[in-house]
Amino acid sequence: MGNHNGDQPRAASCGILVTGHGRFAGGLVGAIEVIMGPQDGLRAVDFPETDTAAQLRDNLTRGLAALEDHDSVVVFCDLRGGSPFNVMNELRGTRNGVEIVYGVNLPLLLAFISERDRGESVGALIRSAVEDGHSGLGRFEAPAQATTPSDGDDDWA
Amino acid sequence: MGNHNGDQPRAASCGILVTGHGRFAGGLVGAIEVIMGPQDGLRAVDFPETDTAAQLRDNLTRGLAALEDHDSVVVFCDLRGGSPFNVMNELRGTRNGVEIVYGVNLPLLLAFISERDRGESVGALIRSAVEDGHSGLGRFEAPAQATTPSDGDDDWA
Repeated sequence: MGNHNGDQPRAASCGILVTGHGRFAGGLVGAIEVIMGPQDGLRAVDFPETDTAAQLRDNLTRGLAALEDHDSVVVFCDLRGGSPFNVMNELRGTRNGVEIVYGVNLPLLLAFISERDRGESVGALIRSAVEDGHSGLGRFEAPAQATTPSDGDDDWA
Repeated sequence: MGNHNGDQPRAASCGILVTGHGRFAGGLVGAIEVIMGPQDGLRAVDFPETDTAAQLRDNLTRGLAALEDHDSVVVFCDLRGGSPFNVMNELRGTRNGVEIVYGVNLPLLLAFISERDRGESVGALIRSAVEDGHSGLGRFEAPAQATTPSDGDDDWA
């Protein structure tokens, strides 16, 4: 392995699989690509309402197989619990180097992709990206405006 | 206002607008509806790559207008910064009762929708849902398996 300087681009060391209910995964991966452009080793596995759990399992199995040239795969799930997470957890042992992150948001995935080729361990990458996921999630505290009602205003119930 | 007991269902007091890059918003709202079924007062505004910022602004304006019978609107954005968040922030003052949450993930939105009709203030709903967004985001610490490499294994780089 090592670095290649030829025409063949080196595959990103860590593959990324995003999965969730409905079209969550495709929507999130599409948002990433709007912002960052096409990414190597990034796949979405959707679970539309019309699919069975067996179809989901097949699609996740294929998703992992498509990333087999990566040393490891981090799977980003919409939700802890629910079929995408549960089925992925069952499949986790089918190859080495599978890690699962749940409750993915865009800041987390942006951070992970931005950092994944810097040569850190997958564990360190996940820790750092999860931190960015937390710091990138919150209520926007806008500057005070005349239209802001006072705290406890009943109109907000 | 008050409670209605007639045929007309009472609109949920708090409208929800989800917006983000690409098809993020439609994907997230679709995932919610797969899990919870159709929801009153829940709208997605996508920002596909082919749209201009002016089109996004028009779509967000229409999204807010479609929720005008709600006392307040909470806007869930994919990312703090970026066009969906920035344009929404510009539009915030065009009606009362607009709150913005950024970095939305599925656990956050599920919690918000599950709780929104319990009569709490919007501020309390947001605080509680943001907590659920944080607690629902993390690295899955799987039970130890024979296939789990030891910490610091170089294969994980």
